[in-house]
Amino acid sequence: MEDSVKIALPESEIPRAWYNVAADLPEPLPPVLHPGTGQPIGPQDLAPLFPMALIAQEVSTERDVEIPDEVRDIYRQWRPTPLYRARRLEQALDTPARIYYKYEGLSPAGSHKPNTAVAQAWYNKQEGVSRITTETGAGQWGSALSMAGAFLGIEIEVFMVRVSFDQKPYRRAMMEGFGARCVASPSSETNAGRAILAEHPDSTGSLGIAISEAVERAAGRDDTKYALGSVLNHVLLHQTVAGLEAKTQLEIAGDYPDVIVGCTGGGSNFAGIAFPFLGEKLRDGRNLRCVAVEPAACPTLTRGKYAYDFGDTSHLTPLVKMHTLGSTFVPPGFHAGGLRYHGMAPLISHLAQLDLLEARNYQQLECFAAGLQFARCEGIVPAPEANHAVKGAIDEALRCKEEGTSQTILFNLCGHGHFDMQAYIDYLGGKLVDQEYDESELAMALSGLPSVAAG
Amino acid sequence: MEDSVKIALPESEIPRAWYNVAADLPEPLPPVLHPGTGQPIGPQDLAPLFPMALIAQEVSTERDVEIPDEVRDIYRQWRPTPLYRARRLEQALDTPARIYYKYEGLSPAGSHKPNTAVAQAWYNKQEGVSRITTETGAGQWGSALSMAGAFLGIEIEVFMVRVSFDQKPYRRAMMEGFGARCVASPSSETNAGRAILAEHPDSTGSLGIAISEAVERAAGRDDTKYALGSVLNHVLLHQTVAGLEAKTQLEIAGDYPDVIVGCTGGGSNFAGIAFPFLGEKLRDGRNLRCVAVEPAACPTLTRGKYAYDFGDTSHLTPLVKMHTLGSTFVPPGFHAGGLRYHGMAPLISHLAQLDLLEARNYQQLECFAAGLQFARCEGIVPAPEANHAVKGAIDEALRCKEEGTSQTILFNLCGHGHFDMQAYIDYLGGKLVDQEYDESELAMALSGLPSVAAG
Repeated sequence: MEDSVKIALPESEIPRAWYNVAADLPEPLPPVLHPGTGQPIGPQDLAPLFPMALIAQEVSTERDVEIPDEVRDIYRQWRPTPLYRARRLEQALDTPARIYYKYEGLSPAGSHKPNTAVAQAWYNKQEGVSRITTETGAGQWGSALSMAGAFLGIEIEVFMVRVSFDQKPYRRAMMEGFGARCVASPSSETNAGRAILAEHPDSTGSLGIAISEAVERAAGRDDTKYALGSVLNHVLLHQTVAGLEAKTQLEIAGDYPDVIVGCTGGGSNFAGIAFPFLGEKLRDGRNLRCVAVEPAACPTLTRGKYAYDFGDTSHLTPLVKMHTLGSTFVPPGFHAGGLRYHGMAPLISHLAQLDLLEARNYQQLECFAAGLQFARCEGIVPAPEANHAVKGAIDEALRCKEEGTSQTILFNLCGHGHFDMQAYIDYLGGKLVDQEYDESELAMALSGLPSVAAG
Repeated sequence: MEDSVKIALPESEIPRAWYNVAADLPEPLPPVLHPGTGQPIGPQDLAPLFPMALIAQEVSTERDVEIPDEVRDIYRQWRPTPLYRARRLEQALDTPARIYYKYEGLSPAGSHKPNTAVAQAWYNKQEGVSRITTETGAGQWGSALSMAGAFLGIEIEVFMVRVSFDQKPYRRAMMEGFGARCVASPSSETNAGRAILAEHPDSTGSLGIAISEAVERAAGRDDTKYALGSVLNHVLLHQTVAGLEAKTQLEIAGDYPDVIVGCTGGGSNFAGIAFPFLGEKLRDGRNLRCVAVEPAACPTLTRGKYAYDFGDTSHLTPLVKMHTLGSTFVPPGFHAGGLRYHGMAPLISHLAQLDLLEARNYQQLECFAAGLQFARCEGIVPAPEANHAVKGAIDEALRCKEEGTSQTILFNLCGHGHFDMQAYIDYLGGKLVDQEYDESELAMALSGLPSVAAG
């Protein structure tokens, strides 16, 4: 039998602490600002939205943040996830590169999202919160939080972008199956939603709008908090379980990555796989490239501005410094719904600014082609979001082939595509086209960025 | 941290041999008969359809059948699968029982089917077969074989029951994504299909018809063989990897099942989990109950006749002695498409006849209710087929509660429900009803059983 294709770990190897890259940054993150005063916000400003433990994690610079036993207990349902060596893909590409992928699609909700959903729900539970509101695009995050709510006995209310609510009923069914309440956004249940509907009765919604609705609901009720599935520091922190496990698994394989690839929407799955390795680079000067892959139709890192901006459309959130296309930018309706966000995690943005990671973008057709090549070799049909990482990894492997270098490539296969098969039907039927954003709309969105004193 | 919830095994623990229950049967299986002569068939009669290695397995009485290294290599993509202790479900049921489930839905195709698909494709490959035809209902089997074909470079042609072809495009997309050709059955590509269409132009098809089409195609071409996803001895054999792993995993947990539960359509997932334990019962007289759960609307074991019958509608197959509702019986269109077959595996039927297993049936509404209770506890949304096993296991756990006995229950969670969310939508929306078969149709189908000399 040939060498291992799957490096499994026992439950005892689930990390006991998340890795906080803030501990190793050469320069600290710019502060989060209050939109009214332009001054850095304090914990009390966030208290209506988040439990104090998560607010503390948001600003922590402690390197290792202990994972509560009860959270690890729930992690054991699907963690450690396997690290795969993509041997059949390597053969198909005829590359000297070694390609590894961490497969987060084996979680019950089908993506990396439960890593933070369970943690967030648990901290909320500890502080007596009985209801959590959130937004979801395609539904990966919403279903993960709904599952966490079912496990922990917390009511979950999900504002789901209307276009997905209507077109992707299956993720909604999963959320409702877990007992969550799922509302099409914009809705008539919030001021933010009603304002949008008054102006655009046929609005198909956006993540920015859904965030506004969820935030408004949480802010207005004492027993209710809000949860975000990406972007924030504590969310990225929770995702580092993936990279920490991968590090142990690569040690077992006697390997270490030369290149790490991940797709980026809000930035959390990329952070999860890359930060634990990036931390070693920051501390020990390891030679390592980190490649963030985003859709060409929503090119936050590659075309956005690094500036203070709102996280939502109705400007209810604080201002964070990040790569942004402008909070009013609405990307075209390509299939990787999880990557259709105008902003990027401040930590990822900061690291990009410091030249600690590279960004590139791809069109969706080339990503679906890569995803199917991967599926035929590895059996797993990736989510459209994950196809961006697959494409990035394949391109790195082909570069190695051209250069004749035997590098180690690690990527995060953040989810399966079982709820996205219509996209594959469209692709196989030749009905899928590449999407272009409108340059003048982007220019307008960028020109509308709030003016604040730089942090 | 509490005791383990997931018992994982390293790759080295993938079994090296399948377990063949034929070695331990108190009475041998009745022979397979030629429909023309009524005489037992020989290997040459099956040679147009199957490679010789699989024909040999079909009649083997060797206890341990070695798994080829190359098949184990591919198994490593998803095997060993975890054995879970359903602690949250136990708590929710407040039962003293210990509930374990073997989760086969983690395979790339989402069910136990790849266990045999990969093996069958590999043996075909060894004998120079370049194309395999098959049938599929809801698509679990078709997608598994398509994946195996993609791995091994074999063309796959799937006759998919038309009602599923039209209503369940996502599994079809998965098959096509793997590069397979998927044809709606009945089709105009075969005599069997054309004959049905001539009589019923709007026929929505059935597994029996699709089998006829696939068999006809394979019989007519030298480079082409046929593969079946359940029922046959060699298929059940390949599935025993699940039970063998579960045995090792329960040893690690220091436990042994009092009851094993599985759902039965053709019988292969039930056989896979139960046979390795049943073998110990047969050899050592272990105390063990095996419970086969089937849909009330297709009650093959609980209402069928144990008799010689055809495996397909057009009567192209040999005659096998099995529990059958009659090859012309068309069950109503309930959601567990994988359980809508008129017959039952001869091995399962034989064991039922020998009182070595119990059978019971459930309506679909109670199965969906059980599936959602499971999902909210364990996070996994089961396939409608698997919900039957979940319901059976829950009922056993409730019996233990009533009796105050702390028994060990093991069931096979044979697949996830990601491609069946419409059924959950219908269930949650109150649109799902229990289905009843037509008693007079059943009586007619049973009266049409072929008359042959008993084997």
